[in-house]
Amino acid sequence: MKLGFIGLGQMGSSMATNLVTAGHDVTVFNRSAEKLAPLVKLGAKPAATVAEACADREAVITMLADDRAVRDIALGTGGIASVLNPRATHISMSTVSVELARDLTEAHARAGQKFLSAPVFGRPEMAAARKLFIVAAGDPDVIRACQPAFDAMGQKTFEIGTEPAAANLTKIAGNFMIAATIETLGEAFALVGKGGVDPSAFLHVMTSTLFPAPIYRTYGTLIAERKFSPAGFAAPLGHKDVRLLLAAGESLRVPMPLGSLLNDRFVRLLAQGGEQLDWSAIGRLAAEDAGLTRE
Amino acid sequence: MKLGFIGLGQMGSSMATNLVTAGHDVTVFNRSAEKLAPLVKLGAKPAATVAEACADREAVITMLADDRAVRDIALGTGGIASVLNPRATHISMSTVSVELARDLTEAHARAGQKFLSAPVFGRPEMAAARKLFIVAAGDPDVIRACQPAFDAMGQKTFEIGTEPAAANLTKIAGNFMIAATIETLGEAFALVGKGGVDPSAFLHVMTSTLFPAPIYRTYGTLIAERKFSPAGFAAPLGHKDVRLLLAAGESLRVPMPLGSLLNDRFVRLLAQGGEQLDWSAIGRLAAEDAGLTRE
Amino acid sequence: MKLGFIGLGQMGSSMATNLVTAGHDVTVFNRSAEKLAPLVKLGAKPAATVAEACADREAVITMLADDRAVRDIALGTGGIASVLNPRATHISMSTVSVELARDLTEAHARAGQKFLSAPVFGRPEMAAARKLFIVAAGDPDVIRACQPAFDAMGQKTFEIGTEPAAANLTKIAGNFMIAATIETLGEAFALVGKGGVDPSAFLHVMTSTLFPAPIYRTYGTLIAERKFSPAGFAAPLGHKDVRLLLAAGESLRVPMPLGSLLNDRFVRLLAQGGEQLDWSAIGRLAAEDAGLTRE
Amino acid sequence: MKLGFIGLGQMGSSMATNLVTAGHDVTVFNRSAEKLAPLVKLGAKPAATVAEACADREAVITMLADDRAVRDIALGTGGIASVLNPRATHISMSTVSVELARDLTEAHARAGQKFLSAPVFGRPEMAAARKLFIVAAGDPDVIRACQPAFDAMGQKTFEIGTEPAAANLTKIAGNFMIAATIETLGEAFALVGKGGVDPSAFLHVMTSTLFPAPIYRTYGTLIAERKFSPAGFAAPLGHKDVRLLLAAGESLRVPMPLGSLLNDRFVRLLAQGGEQLDWSAIGRLAAEDAGLTRE
Repeated sequence: MKLGFIGLGQMGSSMATNLVTAGHDVTVFNRSAEKLAPLVKLGAKPAATVAEACADREAVITMLADDRAVRDIALGTGGIASVLNPRATHISMSTVSVELARDLTEAHARAGQKFLSAPVFGRPEMAAARKLFIVAAGDPDVIRACQPAFDAMGQKTFEIGTEPAAANLTKIAGNFMIAATIETLGEAFALVGKGGVDPSAFLHVMTSTLFPAPIYRTYGTLIAERKFSPAGFAAPLGHKDVRLLLAAGESLRVPMPLGSLLNDRFVRLLAQGGEQLDWSAIGRLAAEDAGLTRE
Repeated sequence: MKLGFIGLGQMGSSMATNLVTAGHDVTVFNRSAEKLAPLVKLGAKPAATVAEACADREAVITMLADDRAVRDIALGTGGIASVLNPRATHISMSTVSVELARDLTEAHARAGQKFLSAPVFGRPEMAAARKLFIVAAGDPDVIRACQPAFDAMGQKTFEIGTEPAAANLTKIAGNFMIAATIETLGEAFALVGKGGVDPSAFLHVMTSTLFPAPIYRTYGTLIAERKFSPAGFAAPLGHKDVRLLLAAGESLRVPMPLGSLLNDRFVRLLAQGGEQLDWSAIGRLAAEDAGLTRE
Repeated sequence: MKLGFIGLGQMGSSMATNLVTAGHDVTVFNRSAEKLAPLVKLGAKPAATVAEACADREAVITMLADDRAVRDIALGTGGIASVLNPRATHISMSTVSVELARDLTEAHARAGQKFLSAPVFGRPEMAAARKLFIVAAGDPDVIRACQPAFDAMGQKTFEIGTEPAAANLTKIAGNFMIAATIETLGEAFALVGKGGVDPSAFLHVMTSTLFPAPIYRTYGTLIAERKFSPAGFAAPLGHKDVRLLLAAGESLRVPMPLGSLLNDRFVRLLAQGGEQLDWSAIGRLAAEDAGLTRE
Repeated sequence: MKLGFIGLGQMGSSMATNLVTAGHDVTVFNRSAEKLAPLVKLGAKPAATVAEACADREAVITMLADDRAVRDIALGTGGIASVLNPRATHISMSTVSVELARDLTEAHARAGQKFLSAPVFGRPEMAAARKLFIVAAGDPDVIRACQPAFDAMGQKTFEIGTEPAAANLTKIAGNFMIAATIETLGEAFALVGKGGVDPSAFLHVMTSTLFPAPIYRTYGTLIAERKFSPAGFAAPLGHKDVRLLLAAGESLRVPMPLGSLLNDRFVRLLAQGGEQLDWSAIGRLAAEDAGLTRE
């Protein structure tokens, strides 16, 4: 496919690389241009502006940090909605708000363009290994047309609805489930640990029996061994996702007491100097409360 | 092995059946004697008293409803500690408090008997299928000696420590993790459901990607389809386990905010008439709070 | 003083009335012009635009519903910051965010104007009776110059800092304390009520002993008697204030678990049809959870 | 009146002193006999046993630390229920559980004795100054007969029901309201403090306006100035009262999310070394979470 790719962070670089490697014709754009070089070396075309990244493309993918960045790149002056060809598709793969997904749906429709939300589940190493899970929502024909791009980036694509925002809501709720798992492990480890049971041994029992899911092994090990840096997914990003959750809960009017607990945990982690830590560091707060550690 | 088995409820009956079927010599006892018949038919010997159930046994297993029942049967007048042979073993497989495990450890030691805590993970159908996970703690030699009995009841035995109470703490923390999963799914479903995403479709994405664990499939389906009766594990038992958790947290001084949230959920479920429902029915409360249902 | 007054809602109308009655020269403006008539009858001058309301004024007061309204009226095209005389003062008396207070401080400074935040404590009947408590922050000389206006509207003015946002933070934290009182009463009433003690009798004991504050009497009576309509302060406004609290908590990085609980309560009340009720209706949710009522 | 008084702790000593001073004929008993001397000096008769403290008395008052102590003294071998004259009254003034109040009601009825619950509100200095608030429940005639004793100890007696347990529930719910006030102040102070507003100045505004209650002044000052020792009411006692609350909530099936939050706060305070501090020290935890202090 003729693709544009905007946003070459840790995730985006790997995804764009996989697209190029799979034989797609990819134009790449990034705010700080130094990220372009490795991709250009592999065969991508560099773009100096959003307009160049969109010119002549069947679809342009955005993989950016947050609502503000996507809103700016897509809906700002000279943004995607104002330069993309009619009938071409904007695929938003970032984790952004339901509200923004709705605004993008409307703006691209007005401009005669197509729009998909297709956020992903997976940490950077999964992006590199082409193992992402992609959750896509929007017009089924458009999803089908973009499938070759998805296949180059992920191991599987799930269609979750015809309204693009459905994919964002799914992604937000999925990240909530991960954060809830971190909190659960943190409290369980604090209890058994203070009671004389080694958290790693406890984790082994749990992941060998009822919870044989990689998420439990991955985060359980990080928390049990207190390996919170370097961050695979930094605490401020985790906090951002919990805020997207609570914002969705407020606009849909769904109270989420566990979501609120997670938000309090992240605010506290950041207040106490956790900016650089992995988001799983909220899993150490229960142990701190139990007097097991004081840093 | 020459075994006694006390407590023929839904779980205990299946476990005792599997012991008999595996060729062990089993004497069975139950408060209400009508539960004995099916086991006697299979070859078990009926006991009319705790003393008869303990006479001449290498080990006697208890699988009872709660602390009160175990305390009574084991430590009361004519209880196991007063009638079991010296050097024989009491294996407590019920979900009971850390405090009771300590009292049993001490009482049996004083009587020259051995004691293991060996609670299990698994719902009734897993007990019937000999698929329980057994978490054992106590003297390693004693665990080894009892392994034939464990092998007849479960698919795997985990040793978690030399102090029996360690197994109870592990079981309590494990059940907390299941209850936390139920709450997590309940809140996530309420959010996506009110936002127009089918909870079952959302569950499919989650269990196909990050959460490929039977617990998520089992409870997710129950919650998504609101199948809370008949109860596989009744709400009052779930509440009992959360109270064991908070009691352990209080005595060890480990604050558990998510545990507290779960306790509030169970108290509410029971206050609103949920006595007969499966414990996963706390997973519907988030939807009620969101105005999605009012029964 | 030569005053402009913008925003003639339930509170604003009473406050403007008291200014006119006290002899001040007041120009009034409101989005929907029909609110002007009663004030014009008393001697106020009607303004057709924000510019007219600001022309020639020493100070212009805003008393509007929320951040959006104040931001629009003060910082939008043709807004106060663009039309008010240099050295004249904008007094923002609405309950708005700390962030907006900072933006207003900066914008008015750039325009050579003065700015005070002076939110109030008091329900509509207190506004009518000139019994408001005013919490003012900003340049002490400017507060002193505006004191005659404050004296016409309130029973007492508190200076809380030289940074205008300090007054907004105080107001937000004060409203949190009221909402926390409502929740506290709601839970206490549910407990004693289900235990056979009449909530009104319990309230009498509490307000006669440890809690002899009007807030407890007022809200305690509303909750005990379930008189949630007509609303003195509607639930969506209460929710707005809790969101201002959590927003301040997030930007200052102060986790507020009780604030989060209150937010969940308001989201639930609104999800279940409480739009028209007084905000004290969150005080009935504990009783509902206890199975005492189902409406 | 001819009175027995059992339990000469900080509160009990002052209360017994006031009874003697008011001219009552008082026999005193305490586990550790050295507490008797000051009262004997004032004219009280020392008792060496519970039986002596009850002999020939119209009423015997207990003011003890917790359920265990009251249960032992009243219902144990040689306890009040077994030695008090028929038709004499046991007045339980300790803060104990609803369940124990029911057991006492039943036991004394069986023995042909009378029973009142009459817990008090007030810190030690109020007890010394005869300023306690007494909340009494039980047979109105019995309350009337004991009024002279109450008048010697408190400034006012409230009758809250004919079932003694009603007074205990009222006391427990009242202490919950105080603890909730402490948490509310703690969170509010953390927020305004981190935002640059002096907590003492904020407290002054609040107690001068909406919250003119001594509780707010007393605890607000303790928290703002971090004066948590010496303890007027020690953290373990505060925790005990929150556990009585949650026990009542569980047995009555009333979920109390704010009560649960308070329990988590106390468990944490005690886990982190707060045994000796005043219970208001839970009010500093919000500030710690905000990164304002680390001790």
